[in-house]
Amino acid sequence: MNEFDLIAKLTKSLPTNSSVIATAGDDCAVLDSGQPGRYLLFKTDAVVEGIHFESGADPASVGHKALARCLSDIAAMAGRPIAALVTIALPKTFDVDYVQKIYHGMDALARRYNVAIVGGETTTNPERMLISISLLGDVASDKCAMRSGAKAGDALFVTGDLGGSIAEKHLQFEPRINEAHWLMENFSLHAMIDLSDGLAGDLRHILSASKVGAEIRAASIPVSRAAKLHAKLKPNGKTPLIAALSDGEDFELLFALPSKDAVELLDRWKQQFPQTRLTCIGKITATPGLKIRDQHGVRELNIHGYAHFS
Amino acid sequence: MNEFDLIAKLTKSLPTNSSVIATAGDDCAVLDSGQPGRYLLFKTDAVVEGIHFESGADPASVGHKALARCLSDIAAMAGRPIAALVTIALPKTFDVDYVQKIYHGMDALARRYNVAIVGGETTTNPERMLISISLLGDVASDKCAMRSGAKAGDALFVTGDLGGSIAEKHLQFEPRINEAHWLMENFSLHAMIDLSDGLAGDLRHILSASKVGAEIRAASIPVSRAAKLHAKLKPNGKTPLIAALSDGEDFELLFALPSKDAVELLDRWKQQFPQTRLTCIGKITATPGLKIRDQHGVRELNIHGYAHFS
Repeated sequence: MNEFDLIAKLTKSLPTNSSVIATAGDDCAVLDSGQPGRYLLFKTDAVVEGIHFESGADPASVGHKALARCLSDIAAMAGRPIAALVTIALPKTFDVDYVQKIYHGMDALARRYNVAIVGGETTTNPERMLISISLLGDVASDKCAMRSGAKAGDALFVTGDLGGSIAEKHLQFEPRINEAHWLMENFSLHAMIDLSDGLAGDLRHILSASKVGAEIRAASIPVSRAAKLHAKLKPNGKTPLIAALSDGEDFELLFALPSKDAVELLDRWKQQFPQTRLTCIGKITATPGLKIRDQHGVRELNIHGYAHFS
Repeated sequence: MNEFDLIAKLTKSLPTNSSVIATAGDDCAVLDSGQPGRYLLFKTDAVVEGIHFESGADPASVGHKALARCLSDIAAMAGRPIAALVTIALPKTFDVDYVQKIYHGMDALARRYNVAIVGGETTTNPERMLISISLLGDVASDKCAMRSGAKAGDALFVTGDLGGSIAEKHLQFEPRINEAHWLMENFSLHAMIDLSDGLAGDLRHILSASKVGAEIRAASIPVSRAAKLHAKLKPNGKTPLIAALSDGEDFELLFALPSKDAVELLDRWKQQFPQTRLTCIGKITATPGLKIRDQHGVRELNIHGYAHFS
């Protein structure tokens, strides 16, 4: 049983109440606390030593990554982060200096996006460090970017370059908070998600939530230098394109908007974020399923994203 | 370095912003999200296999405890829980049925207090299970019970019986949400905390936040049957009174209110919560320090509560 099967089983009939707008199925839970015009966003995410970061990894980067993962989910809803709680589970003996440097990495990122760190706890996990962060944010209720609004004919865009994140980017990526906010302020986004499990897997989340299909163009996928380099070094492994479609932890934004806005978006994006690539990778289709077009024609894309326990 | 020293070091200069009303130093973080008359409450808490529950413990009780600990902190602020996120870190091989029963225990408690479970994640922790819950709640901004408002002359009350929780109660306790809400609606509470680290330790948190002292009466401490039984079985261990003062995980409410209201409170409590003991254990004093009065007179109480890593 992989992560997604288990979650599906566990979350089949969870308790709900009148505050719930959207739940486990989106990047963040969305709650109506009674404040007119605003929704709360609520998200938690954990990183585990030996799984999400190597023992002895640069501690400031570990702290950065732990918080940045949650911020990326707030970005995916076009939200604004407010406050975080940090749980850090430590072996009985630990290096105080290392733990402090984790906090320094987290703090620096938090200050950049005006996130308050309002507590949490330290507890014991004898064999390895685990950091769990929960993040509270909010968003204008009419500007909340869900996964479920993609429409046939929409253009599909992705920020940045994809694949090979494990070489370096997964510890250093900048969450796309500012980009998401600008997109939502200036364009009519139909659906958005952040790429944590790989383009193919995460695009399928949009497709199933929106009850649509998609066709992407192989030649348009923005393959990262890291993915190309990795393929050169390990020529028998996956191709750069497969890496860009399936590697986890890109933490880029994938979104759908009306195709009539595509040209204006590309023009204005270049002015606004000259350092960051934005690519139209295909379109939303009425027919369900995920197809890819390459030099041989159009076929079903059978690659899935990264899943725990699989 | 124990848990409290480490937290003090880590939290010396955390990032803050204009939403923060109270932070790590109280039972929950308190946030002003802009909603008139309401504050948000934000709390996280983790339980670890082999630390907070034994391997093979009744799974529904494990789920109950994981959520109840957070609810107890919302109770300590006289708040209302809204929604929870559940992170469950599992070894590579795990018993799906056991994990489902953990959820059943959590779900039953959540439904009782109208808490929505709005997501979370499963991740990997190879050697042992870890459950981290974050809880969002709210409270009327003029009725939020902090630790910092106790005044000299206030009467000190505690709900329930204390000590020996490890025998059974720590897996089964009912968070005092309803009691706290009733207290806040009907009386002018000056300060409140839930007992997680032991009466002596947690009372010191109120005293230092309120910049006051306290004198408690040994004969008034409501010692639990479990603490008495444990002392009989292990006569060379701690006395029942020491257990009631220092054992962790009672999850009862400790609060201070004007002594003129004490008699009315005791009368009305008996009507409202006939199954639950309420005890006046002493008073707040202007002189700092924690004193205990017994048959030999008054002396400094040197017992501390439970601390991790100590």
